[in-house]
Amino acid sequence: MKEFEQKIGYTFKNTELLETALTHSSYANENRTKSNERLEFLGDSVLSIIISDYIFRHLTDVNEGWLSKYRATLVCEQSLDEIAKKIELSSMIRLGKGEEMTGGRKRASIVSDAFEALLAAIYLDGGMETARKWVIDLMEDTIKDVVVGHRYADYKTMLQEALQKGTVGKVTYRTVSEEGLDHNKTFEVEVLVDGIPKAKGTGHNKKEAEQNAAHKALKLIGKQV
Amino acid sequence: MKEFEQKIGYTFKNTELLETALTHSSYANENRTKSNERLEFLGDSVLSIIISDYIFRHLTDVNEGWLSKYRATLVCEQSLDEIAKKIELSSMIRLGKGEEMTGGRKRASIVSDAFEALLAAIYLDGGMETARKWVIDLMEDTIKDVVVGHRYADYKTMLQEALQKGTVGKVTYRTVSEEGLDHNKTFEVEVLVDGIPKAKGTGHNKKEAEQNAAHKALKLIGKQV
Repeated sequence: MKEFEQKIGYTFKNTELLETALTHSSYANENRTKSNERLEFLGDSVLSIIISDYIFRHLTDVNEGWLSKYRATLVCEQSLDEIAKKIELSSMIRLGKGEEMTGGRKRASIVSDAFEALLAAIYLDGGMETARKWVIDLMEDTIKDVVVGHRYADYKTMLQEALQKGTVGKVTYRTVSEEGLDHNKTFEVEVLVDGIPKAKGTGHNKKEAEQNAAHKALKLIGKQV
Repeated sequence: MKEFEQKIGYTFKNTELLETALTHSSYANENRTKSNERLEFLGDSVLSIIISDYIFRHLTDVNEGWLSKYRATLVCEQSLDEIAKKIELSSMIRLGKGEEMTGGRKRASIVSDAFEALLAAIYLDGGMETARKWVIDLMEDTIKDVVVGHRYADYKTMLQEALQKGTVGKVTYRTVSEEGLDHNKTFEVEVLVDGIPKAKGTGHNKKEAEQNAAHKALKLIGKQV
């Protein structure tokens, strides 16, 4: 437990909260102890307000439809399962025997529920601001992808719309190259209209490179962007 | 606006937030101003964490299935529309002409969205603890009904279960009397088993009276409760 606290960067005043957060109902049933289900109920809302607040303040010109879409993307089972890998949460979950045998430890639903329960435990133990800092630090890259993705989203949409008014149609994107180390990669992406290459763009991720390619293509067809 | 601030018991540092919270999209479209939709997106999560936190701490022995059910009951459109009546929110909403003509001011969805937007405005202006105190004060009676309802829920369930083991079956409840003024009523309720009156109970609301009647009936059939 001490080791896990070091890994997550938070030391509990009340370690019972941490234990409960890591206890799946299958283990709780076998060992007559508390499961993490109540904490998961609370953690769901803790995560929702932290993410909502963050994207509300950082995407000031984005309408509520997109905000809802982004929130759903960020708090979904799959996203949380990915984040949980950073702290190797899966290996810490207390599972019942049957659940262990049928591969429950790798199930995204079990891991993401435990992640929400862990967030609730930190919220109860250290308060809202501690929970906020903890989860934003962990999710920062994922959130930035969404925020950056949005900042550039307009070019792709604009290109699609510009072309639909003409006689040509299908816009596709193809990654041309991928260079550099993990934390500092450069992607080059090409935009094709009806299969014919039109422009290239680079960026630190594929989304950014696609948007830059779309931006160039828009300029080429004489659009002021 | 000053009058409305007195009515809701909160004075905004940034009154633009209050104005936006009261602006329905139909008005915003007609007058090219900001609507309350982004605030409503945020307010939804603010309300969810406040209610979740409250029922999590006050219903310590209630499982997550019931907690979810109670949260859904408390934050639903109909519940918020009722709460909003206490502060006469509906009359303050800025509506577009078409929406006004087709009765939008009385629509629960429009009023409950404005309520969530108002909560978000208070949250942004005064912080989480201010928002929490404000909405808990307003919703206290509604929340207490749910919490009290749960505290007594076991007697009705226990009676039903006890009778199912015997030969008799159908349990119904009938209000016998209702006395006193609005804020201090007493209800008397009778429990009937297969149509035959078995016991009476009183309470400050029907739920409480029903539970007390069930409690007495359980004692009469020799159950230790």
